[in-house]
Amino acid sequence: MTKGKLIGVGLGPGDPDLLTVRAVRLISAANVIAYPALPDTESFARQIAARHIPAGAHEIVIEIPMTKERGPAQAAYDLGAKRIAEALDLGEDVLVLCEGDPFFYGSFMYLHARLAEHYVVDVVPGITSVNAAATRIHFPLAARNEVFTVIPAPLDDNSVRSRIEASDTCAILKVGRHLGRIRALLSNLGLLDRAHYIERATLDQEVSMTLADAPDPAPYFSMILVSKGRDPWLKTQS
Amino acid sequence: MTKGKLIGVGLGPGDPDLLTVRAVRLISAANVIAYPALPDTESFARQIAARHIPAGAHEIVIEIPMTKERGPAQAAYDLGAKRIAEALDLGEDVLVLCEGDPFFYGSFMYLHARLAEHYVVDVVPGITSVNAAATRIHFPLAARNEVFTVIPAPLDDNSVRSRIEASDTCAILKVGRHLGRIRALLSNLGLLDRAHYIERATLDQEVSMTLADAPDPAPYFSMILVSKGRDPWLKTQS
Repeated sequence: MTKGKLIGVGLGPGDPDLLTVRAVRLISAANVIAYPALPDTESFARQIAARHIPAGAHEIVIEIPMTKERGPAQAAYDLGAKRIAEALDLGEDVLVLCEGDPFFYGSFMYLHARLAEHYVVDVVPGITSVNAAATRIHFPLAARNEVFTVIPAPLDDNSVRSRIEASDTCAILKVGRHLGRIRALLSNLGLLDRAHYIERATLDQEVSMTLADAPDPAPYFSMILVSKGRDPWLKTQS
Repeated sequence: MTKGKLIGVGLGPGDPDLLTVRAVRLISAANVIAYPALPDTESFARQIAARHIPAGAHEIVIEIPMTKERGPAQAAYDLGAKRIAEALDLGEDVLVLCEGDPFFYGSFMYLHARLAEHYVVDVVPGITSVNAAATRIHFPLAARNEVFTVIPAPLDDNSVRSRIEASDTCAILKVGRHLGRIRALLSNLGLLDRAHYIERATLDQEVSMTLADAPDPAPYFSMILVSKGRDPWLKTQS
């Protein structure tokens, strides 16, 4: 029997209007879908795709435990990959629903790591939260020969600072409880008035403001965008 | 009279299937569209959107001269902004077609700089060439707390090298005639076997290979993706 294909589909940042044409077509025709979910929470990925999921689709829920240790989450991906593999072995294609882009800080990579050796894989890119957030607050990410860096906030101060210093613009992700620390760091660098805060970009609950006014701690789906140069949209820089 | 709205619409990397649902809806309903074009060349942005452009739409072509000096291109954006402003003043919304994402190394920023002060602006994100290329060659861009950097190849060797050294993964853009220089630099850093080359991602003419085998000079729409760690999709790293 021909094995099924593993298809990782990026869904974008949350607004269903930001799905791609290909994502809509694939979801609408899916027999088997898989997606991660936190315990006792509706899967965010499934919510984004919901209006296109066929009524009879078989759904593989990969429940990710909220623990500090990596072991339990790894075991969850092991189990999810096993269940996906069972469907693939029956000749079914399996569509993995991925928030944002599958290869940009996405959990799809953990399934890919477990399955790509044994099955045909296809990956469909999605709009990242960074690109979406930038359009919401009219923040040009990079122009001409500017260097743009994506920095996870959990890194230590020296690591974050040196990356900001080496960039023209940057996006600081996974801010959450690190907000106060990152704000102090940007303030010390003289960049507080160049830093913008946005949470839940493109969702109904989207909030954005200057970093100076941002809540501490911030929710997990929040980021800081920093431009070191002049306002990049000034005519004189274009 | 109410002025029209300026709408910058990201079209993704080239495959029309990677347009977003919102982009398709906006283009299909447009009365006035604007887009950049190189001399004597069909506009790439227009090609991506072509199947959705209404037959009767008014088209503003912004012809960008191919010169080393910035003056002539700036004059072209001045003229384009003037023609767009005339339509906006008549109450027409103007849709600017943007390859990739409008705020990620896009020419939309030059129009935005000239018009955002005077008109209401809306920006719709698009899939970047970087995200698209990564899915085509199954290259995870970033996971967990990895730092990801976008580096324009025209920067000098020291600038490129220091940014590679400070990143876990990076995308080197605008490779073109800089390919040989960047390849030598990555070779000196011991990263040649970690570097992947891809041109025209998602188009029929897409080509990808290890950087060692890549053509020199490369076409403009080419990039290099570098991962410094172990293959990020290895199970042990997930």
